Amino acid sequence: MKLSSRIKRCGLSPMRQFYPSEVAAVRRGLKIYHMNIGQPDIDTPPVFLEEVRRYGERVVPYAPAPGEQAYLRAVRAYYENLGCDLEEGDILATFGGSEALEIALACMLEEGDEVLVPEPFYPNYTTFVNVTGGKIRPIPTAAAEGYRFAARERIEPLINDRTRAILVTTPGNPTGVVLSREEMRLLADIAKEHDLFLISDEVYREIVYTREKSTMLSFADAAENVVVIDSVSKRFSTTGARVGALISRNRELMGQALKWAQGRLCITTLDQLGAARMYETLGTEYFLSVRDEYRRRRDATVAALERIPGVGFTCPEGAFYLMVTLPVDDTEKLQYFLLEEFQDRGETVMFAPGGGFYSDDRLGRDKIRIAYVMAPEKMTRAVELLGLGIEAYRRKTENG
Amino acid sequence: MKLSSRIKRCGLSPMRQFYPSEVAAVRRGLKIYHMNIGQPDIDTPPVFLEEVRRYGERVVPYAPAPGEQAYLRAVRAYYENLGCDLEEGDILATFGGSEALEIALACMLEEGDEVLVPEPFYPNYTTFVNVTGGKIRPIPTAAAEGYRFAARERIEPLINDRTRAILVTTPGNPTGVVLSREEMRLLADIAKEHDLFLISDEVYREIVYTREKSTMLSFADAAENVVVIDSVSKRFSTTGARVGALISRNRELMGQALKWAQGRLCITTLDQLGAARMYETLGTEYFLSVRDEYRRRRDATVAALERIPGVGFTCPEGAFYLMVTLPVDDTEKLQYFLLEEFQDRGETVMFAPGGGFYSDDRLGRDKIRIAYVMAPEKMTRAVELLGLGIEAYRRKTENG
Repeated sequence: MKLSSRIKRCGLSPMRQFYPSEVAAVRRGLKIYHMNIGQPDIDTPPVFLEEVRRYGERVVPYAPAPGEQAYLRAVRAYYENLGCDLEEGDILATFGGSEALEIALACMLEEGDEVLVPEPFYPNYTTFVNVTGGKIRPIPTAAAEGYRFAARERIEPLINDRTRAILVTTPGNPTGVVLSREEMRLLADIAKEHDLFLISDEVYREIVYTREKSTMLSFADAAENVVVIDSVSKRFSTTGARVGALISRNRELMGQALKWAQGRLCITTLDQLGAARMYETLGTEYFLSVRDEYRRRRDATVAALERIPGVGFTCPEGAFYLMVTLPVDDTEKLQYFLLEEFQDRGETVMFAPGGGFYSDDRLGRDKIRIAYVMAPEKMTRAVELLGLGIEAYRRKTENG
Repeated sequence: MKLSSRIKRCGLSPMRQFYPSEVAAVRRGLKIYHMNIGQPDIDTPPVFLEEVRRYGERVVPYAPAPGEQAYLRAVRAYYENLGCDLEEGDILATFGGSEALEIALACMLEEGDEVLVPEPFYPNYTTFVNVTGGKIRPIPTAAAEGYRFAARERIEPLINDRTRAILVTTPGNPTGVVLSREEMRLLADIAKEHDLFLISDEVYREIVYTREKSTMLSFADAAENVVVIDSVSKRFSTTGARVGALISRNRELMGQALKWAQGRLCITTLDQLGAARMYETLGTEYFLSVRDEYRRRRDATVAALERIPGVGFTCPEGAFYLMVTLPVDDTEKLQYFLLEEFQDRGETVMFAPGGGFYSDDRLGRDKIRIAYVMAPEKMTRAVELLGLGIEAYRRKTENG
């Protein structure tokens, strides 16, 4: 049986390859610090489970295809607080930010169409673009420039007649870059001038250290272009709820998106009710406390990184990731070494090798992505292990 | 901005057009009997909410991409009871049967590829096929033959070099047809001989009145061809949980499907735990009691239909739907009439007009689909209203 060449072009998670070595390391009794995955250890707000627990109906029925009223209302109110007036039809409840992106791309792309994405980028973007038959055209960035990309001369030469959208993540995964208002304005202008969609993945919106939080939805003149991807996963540390939103004032797009939504009937009923309750009861105070906790984790991570000779990085402005350039030839080999040949007091560490965040995995081989999702003291120890590991790896490779 | 021609080819739910008339009818104080949607009023098993309520962790984290261990184990055990030995890698947890189908088709189809589907069929199949750029080639059936289609001479002439799969629903929505073992065997043979996938949507498996329940997975020699779509939605009356499964022993397919699964990270954590508990605690006795309840509803529906002059139908063998041919020119017009101009003691009725179940909506205009999801006495009254409505409609159209 023939399988689709589109799905064949997609990759499996680059982390999967380390799984056997990881299992073996755990069997040998090693404790592993996980800087490789974006699963925060911050508590899910108790109101989420409270709301789910108090569900009192006898049947758990389909939700409406566009979303539960309570959830859509709560998302509208949240955006009202951000200064954005949305109508109910501007919001579609989705299975996490993932499905929002999947639907947006499926509505825009056909065989051979292109999406501009600053590189390095979140690897799952590739899957959602590839399954449409479209492809990502990367906007290259440089570590030395802190991975910033929002400049007209970098973007416009990449636009051609197959370009349908620009897809950005702000605050950024994996780079931690947060776009300034001027950068956001520029991207909105470029999208308008070239008649492109501007998909803005803003799931980390509340986790921003150096600027005011913001959204592309605030550019009223680019209302037809802007599409926002949102989710409760990171905002409320409920990644397992799978409740997100596709948001756009472009009614033609939302009309098409509704077809997809009706096709899969609805998203989970109980989780939407829990998500609604979080939005209703938690606001600025909660967001700031979570933001401050991530800042402590960032600061601990950065301080520990500064003690490792030869590493390069830009202090992240938002989200809970950073890209680090290491003084090694290949960070995948380093990861295998850390799992198979290294330990310090019975402990080792995992990270995400940089290659997975580039369209050409020969790029990024000297880089890693760190997710600082653990408490500050754990991050300090994890980065210390990374430093010791690099030292041991270099001793081995230079002598080998 | 240009939108994908694929999504434009998809339709919105054919039921949406009646929504304004429905709202107006309710505002006028009318009570509406809903035979139009497949939302059962049977209680969700209390163990589902019990399990969800007893979740005691502080964080609701991502589940593993292929599914929660507890859920995958429970699905395996369920199939073991059906006589099918599955390995863990044969099962992928999905957002309902809908996502299972979406993933299967995305892994198989590219621009211009074809899937054979007996017609009339579940309208959402069209969306999932269209978004890949593929298309449905219908296998025509006749009301007079009870919508049966599994004959070599009906299927083989439709196979060409773009055919990738045969997609069947058994027990059938909208027809209530349940394939016999011989018919299933024949389909498996055709798939094998022509190197096609055989996608079998078996979400209504336990609701079968006239035969032993069965699954395409039992044909070991067609293991590479068979792909089963499954879900807890109808089996346990938990449509809002959105927990389903894609099941196949074709490892190449499942390997590709895992890429999609990793792309969207995971399905809902709590709902999987609830679904696992239902599979663990409810078995044959529960399934038979639900089946018997639907049989009572079917019998009430059929008895009431027999009292309406000029209607044609075949008594359904499974699921909870039946197609009925009505003595009217256009069942959409009849539906508008029932909402806007008809009532009997303050009540009226809704159904799904037949056109939505055909690739060419000029077919099926004299037909409706009834979902017998209400208690027997309600079904009796709903069908009585249909009969009175037809009478009134015919009086009006014949005089008008």
